[in-house]
Amino acid sequence: MRLSRAFLPTLKETPAEAQIVSHRLMLRAGLVRQTSAGIYAWLPMGLRALQKVGQIVREEQDRAGAQEILMPTIQSAELWRQSGRYDAYGPEMLRLKDRHERDMLFGPTNEEMVTDIFRSYAKSYRDLPRNLYHIQWKFRDEVRPRFGVMRGREFLMKDAYSFDLTKEGAEHSYRQMFLAYLRTFARMGLKAIPMRADTGPIGGNLSHEFIILAETGESQVFVSRTLLDMDPLAEAPDYDGDLKPLVEAWTSHYAATDEMHEPLAWEKLPEAERVSARGIEVGHIFYFGTKYSAPMGLSVQGADGQAVVPEMGSYGIGVSRLVGAIIEANHDEAGIRWPDAVAPFRAAVLNLKPGDGACDALCDKIYAALGADAVYDDRADRAGVKFADADLMGHPWQVIVGPRGAAANKVELKRRQTGERHEVSPEDALGKIRG
Amino acid sequence: MRLSRAFLPTLKETPAEAQIVSHRLMLRAGLVRQTSAGIYAWLPMGLRALQKVGQIVREEQDRAGAQEILMPTIQSAELWRQSGRYDAYGPEMLRLKDRHERDMLFGPTNEEMVTDIFRSYAKSYRDLPRNLYHIQWKFRDEVRPRFGVMRGREFLMKDAYSFDLTKEGAEHSYRQMFLAYLRTFARMGLKAIPMRADTGPIGGNLSHEFIILAETGESQVFVSRTLLDMDPLAEAPDYDGDLKPLVEAWTSHYAATDEMHEPLAWEKLPEAERVSARGIEVGHIFYFGTKYSAPMGLSVQGADGQAVVPEMGSYGIGVSRLVGAIIEANHDEAGIRWPDAVAPFRAAVLNLKPGDGACDALCDKIYAALGADAVYDDRADRAGVKFADADLMGHPWQVIVGPRGAAANKVELKRRQTGERHEVSPEDALGKIRG
Repeated sequence: MRLSRAFLPTLKETPAEAQIVSHRLMLRAGLVRQTSAGIYAWLPMGLRALQKVGQIVREEQDRAGAQEILMPTIQSAELWRQSGRYDAYGPEMLRLKDRHERDMLFGPTNEEMVTDIFRSYAKSYRDLPRNLYHIQWKFRDEVRPRFGVMRGREFLMKDAYSFDLTKEGAEHSYRQMFLAYLRTFARMGLKAIPMRADTGPIGGNLSHEFIILAETGESQVFVSRTLLDMDPLAEAPDYDGDLKPLVEAWTSHYAATDEMHEPLAWEKLPEAERVSARGIEVGHIFYFGTKYSAPMGLSVQGADGQAVVPEMGSYGIGVSRLVGAIIEANHDEAGIRWPDAVAPFRAAVLNLKPGDGACDALCDKIYAALGADAVYDDRADRAGVKFADADLMGHPWQVIVGPRGAAANKVELKRRQTGERHEVSPEDALGKIRG
Repeated sequence: MRLSRAFLPTLKETPAEAQIVSHRLMLRAGLVRQTSAGIYAWLPMGLRALQKVGQIVREEQDRAGAQEILMPTIQSAELWRQSGRYDAYGPEMLRLKDRHERDMLFGPTNEEMVTDIFRSYAKSYRDLPRNLYHIQWKFRDEVRPRFGVMRGREFLMKDAYSFDLTKEGAEHSYRQMFLAYLRTFARMGLKAIPMRADTGPIGGNLSHEFIILAETGESQVFVSRTLLDMDPLAEAPDYDGDLKPLVEAWTSHYAATDEMHEPLAWEKLPEAERVSARGIEVGHIFYFGTKYSAPMGLSVQGADGQAVVPEMGSYGIGVSRLVGAIIEANHDEAGIRWPDAVAPFRAAVLNLKPGDGACDALCDKIYAALGADAVYDDRADRAGVKFADADLMGHPWQVIVGPRGAAANKVELKRRQTGERHEVSPEDALGKIRG
């Protein structure tokens, strides 16, 4: 995209209302704009990051055998009365009435609706196990929305729901999501640690939060150093195989949020193993048995002809929140430092002297070779402005083209993550950027 | 996807509530499920079609120079008071209050919001022209929702908004969208005809509807035969060039909805040129000048230092509606006949005898070669059930593998659109499917 024609606005001033660094940077770099309290429009740069994050989530859900559907945002209150949550859910639920005065709501989550959909079709044990997910906007009417997209009111979430015939089956589904989550976050360049969690309003027996470490995190966490060195991408799991050992490799080490922390157990660990840090929750998984299937009358015929009430779990990832969390974990004084996999644009071409024949020709050539995943700063602005905007926007690679270099067929290649700069040929620059 | 593990439910009964063929087929083939009146969940098969349709829309918007953003569903009433539409918009607008009793609404369209976003950043003539689009769920509280996704209450729409410094610029933006729309629908295998339209509640001076012809269409249209023979994909437009002649090649022939029909002009056409048919609206474009920019105070500094109030247009495509419209235009007694470009799956592999070694081996091989864009019917069902489901779901290609053929390394390849079937080698089948 050529910046001279793009809608990629940046702000020079730091917005006063933004309390945390990701919020400030998302506003300054033109990723989002607040349209009401806790509600954001995603501008082209932010939307590209959101789409890349969403696509990684989707690919890892698919790989683990979950199937994508898309449930609507507006739900009937009737379903929530069947589970008993319509009255139990607090003022975070956005309730409304349609023109016929029917009680409706903007879904904060979808356990009821997916159970209703599944019970409409599943009749026999052959229809299980299944895991259905969707990536859809949710609404939670936070009393005091803040921290930008980290705690907004309208937010994009991936939520998956598993249906199994037995407790053992449900545990297998839980482990599939557990491992899929580790891969998902690792692919985004994040170190996410699973931690035992309270089940809260979703209810149930077993739950883990996935928490990434960032200095500016919202909560205190306690983690064994061993976990920080484990790489979820080292080996692709066989999701049909026995997943218990793979999960236990993670759960056998200490990791807890403040809430679930056990100081006595913690202090038994060797000093060098104890890492206490700040964390940001980016995912949460639950196994809750028949909490929704039983009251809502979901039942299928088992292999022996007897009725079986399926065991369920649900699995959430905060997709829009992740964009903020990634920035919390990847920034410096100058701006964002996008990990390659989720960067809105992989590279920026900076033309330091638009109008100079050699500069223009070389930039055009490089920009054409990089394709749609690059921006081209062809604006009639000073070099300083271009450097500052490129650092603020945080493209992983910058190709800097000035008149002296262009005459010698050389460019400067800058790696945003490390700040390293090297003079190289255009071909070498393209080779490095393509990886 | 293996059908034995997939969530691809079909219904044997024709649902009584569905009045039109696309609605019946979408329910029977398991594309969608109604969750409240006029509100649908998209099941895996339907979602895949919706995503393919959305992706074609996106690619053609990008090609024409529009830039994607994503505005939220929930809007503040305040913005709509600035344009004067809050009170003017009828009961189709879903109004609601948040927990602080602020008036909000679920957006039925986004002229106000995008004008607000644009005025926050655009300061100078250098910031124009721009065209911003998003693909987002909208809500219109139809008094009597019907026809499935063709007239639902929660629906997915692509809406683009152009900002220009002059009337001539705005006309150029209008023409860009006019031509992009022709390409968009043509890529989906649809014949869409642009017709002069009333501007209705959006307001403005110039407007075209894009209407596809289908026997079961909702309205009467009158079209010159010449238009039916024109191919929008014959030549890619240069969107920066002079688009007037390209647009006039379409607008110089007669095409009108019932509403705008002029019988006198129509009857002057030669008999052979007159086609009267049924049509379905799938897109609508508007040029409306300063209708929103003026009252909302959008203004930029012109090249001469004087303030300029930008000229605007808006451009909608009913993305979820298109899925229904495509089925209206592509079906037979047995079910859907997806055009290749928007088919949820490009091919189905039908194993007529699961458990037979040769059948299983050959099916596994073909399914692996086809990849994620294929379904594999490996269910323990009769051949008749598999044939019927494949025809109902409407995959463009079926690879039928029986024990006799498998022993001779032969399969039957069926083309859904024509019904043709040929015995071919597995390699030839793969070659044909890949195109």
